[in-house]
Amino acid sequence: MSGQAVIALDGMGAERGPTVVLRGAEIALERHPGLRFIVFGNAQRLEPLLSKSVKLKGVVELRHTELAVSPEDKPSHVLRRGQRTSMRLAIDAVAAGEAAGVVSAGNTGALMVLSKFVFKTVPGIDRPAIAGFFPTLRGESVLLDLGANVECSANNLVQFAIMGAAFARTVLGMPRPTVGLVNVGEEELKGNETVRAAAQMLRNAALPLEFHGFIEGNDIPKGTTDVIVTDGFAGNIALKTAEGTAKLYSQFLREAFRRSIFSRLGLILASGALRTLKERVDPRLYNGGVLLGLNGITVKSHGGTDATGFGTAIGLAADMALGDIAGRIADDFRQFGGLLNPSGPRAAAMLS
Amino acid sequence: MSGQAVIALDGMGAERGPTVVLRGAEIALERHPGLRFIVFGNAQRLEPLLSKSVKLKGVVELRHTELAVSPEDKPSHVLRRGQRTSMRLAIDAVAAGEAAGVVSAGNTGALMVLSKFVFKTVPGIDRPAIAGFFPTLRGESVLLDLGANVECSANNLVQFAIMGAAFARTVLGMPRPTVGLVNVGEEELKGNETVRAAAQMLRNAALPLEFHGFIEGNDIPKGTTDVIVTDGFAGNIALKTAEGTAKLYSQFLREAFRRSIFSRLGLILASGALRTLKERVDPRLYNGGVLLGLNGITVKSHGGTDATGFGTAIGLAADMALGDIAGRIADDFRQFGGLLNPSGPRAAAMLS
Repeated sequence: MSGQAVIALDGMGAERGPTVVLRGAEIALERHPGLRFIVFGNAQRLEPLLSKSVKLKGVVELRHTELAVSPEDKPSHVLRRGQRTSMRLAIDAVAAGEAAGVVSAGNTGALMVLSKFVFKTVPGIDRPAIAGFFPTLRGESVLLDLGANVECSANNLVQFAIMGAAFARTVLGMPRPTVGLVNVGEEELKGNETVRAAAQMLRNAALPLEFHGFIEGNDIPKGTTDVIVTDGFAGNIALKTAEGTAKLYSQFLREAFRRSIFSRLGLILASGALRTLKERVDPRLYNGGVLLGLNGITVKSHGGTDATGFGTAIGLAADMALGDIAGRIADDFRQFGGLLNPSGPRAAAMLS
Repeated sequence: MSGQAVIALDGMGAERGPTVVLRGAEIALERHPGLRFIVFGNAQRLEPLLSKSVKLKGVVELRHTELAVSPEDKPSHVLRRGQRTSMRLAIDAVAAGEAAGVVSAGNTGALMVLSKFVFKTVPGIDRPAIAGFFPTLRGESVLLDLGANVECSANNLVQFAIMGAAFARTVLGMPRPTVGLVNVGEEELKGNETVRAAAQMLRNAALPLEFHGFIEGNDIPKGTTDVIVTDGFAGNIALKTAEGTAKLYSQFLREAFRRSIFSRLGLILASGALRTLKERVDPRLYNGGVLLGLNGITVKSHGGTDATGFGTAIGLAADMALGDIAGRIADDFRQFGGLLNPSGPRAAAMLS
């Protein structure tokens, strides 16, 4: 997908400094040459970096602010006192229509709270969720929620399914994504009441997705479904366990190759193959947690990522903006949201 | 750990048939030469296999039964009607003092329900948990609960911590195991109320373990703590996600090696190294979910495992029996259990 869009960047959020943000913008331009950026942050730090970049000449507008959200700041404090931070100003630029989406590598909690406060939730959605995508045996899948909601109702899970499917349609180009609900077994009787109730609703409602039923943890890396729905507690743990296991495996692989002269020689001959493997599971190419369910696009980059990773996150924001994901989700909820929550406030209002 | 013990084996539970059980017993004898077995199942099928085994001569007593629990049987049905099944008879042999523990590769739900019914829960423990151990960057860790309890209270989690620590002391030989509680962040304020309350209790009680605090999903394969405590929903998903990710990684590795002549040659030279890697993460060497918190030892083998995997599960049962894990857990709860649950029935009884 290519096209013109302006992305607001929090220049101060990355752990490795503003270079990551500006170099990330350069990398994003390779795939999306039509992008332009508004970068918020300390001009004394950003200006010298920017003046050195040929690629960013004429495509970046710099807006100075002294303040930045730090990783230790409490989200509630940032909400009350952080009006002049680079993160908040970047979000405000989206709300003002100056930019189509915001990307920040800063404090996750603050970014969520500010985005929710400024953008507001799409009508019909109780809580926004964080989604991410990653490589699987079959290609790529979307997982949500990654930690925004540690406790979820059945309605929340159903809403995540619709939002995740909209994301898969928009960004991954899947016309009718399959959706799996994570459980401790595939049988209908297994799991807690919440997932069973959510499955019941997903089976019965006519939604713009293909409900596959329950899936288990091993189905996540297998890619059994395009979209994987779970609560933010299990989703966060599953994602981080997968990341940790991949690291463990590559560490064991390195140690194994060091064992003998033969294996060291084999390593040299196979270095191209191992590079291919590394690229295929490179977390930088899957960087970016997207906040779904808001009237605005927010992408959270890993705090410690490098320019390649930040570039991926910007590309994701661009894909979401160009595919009008917020509009699609709003449409879906206008069309299907009423079917879902017969005991919710809207149904009650209809009855009264 | 070596010594004499009798293990009761469900001869009919393995998907690949009784050969797996008997060959598994032969393999377990290599590490535990003092073991003897009572094998329950269909004599027409077991007898011919047994007569061919030189290693099992004199160490196996065969007890015939026509009935076996099938994977589809409902646990409640097996409890009511399954008195003559090989699984139930093997459990009964432990209760009768004829064997020190039972190993089955059959229906997990039925094995749990029958074990709980026959062995009864250790005083002070509200619910038994399933624990398993697996390779990490630091060595080996124990994870529980793996799915016995999809919803847990703070008290349940604290009890899992004590049981998991007893397992690590007994089977992995760790004098004072470190225990981590899985959460979506390391900060004290993160997560749901249940994990925060459990952490509070674990911090304040003087228990035979070192409470590390909260850990995240990536800490599981990293081996940050010896024992990892979480509810059965998240624990099951984490374990299966890790298994699936390891499979994904080795599949990607195979595909990468097929790419060129050089990498194929590299693969041949490095085949020893890759075998080492494979052995290090071989799930058969970590096979066996143990049911903790009962007055008896039950080990659940993976249904589809082979003889090597079943041998590991038998070895685990033997280690638990020889280390008297049930006695240790009962001791711990006599000593420390009262500190934990000030609103529980025992404290109430003391006050009345």
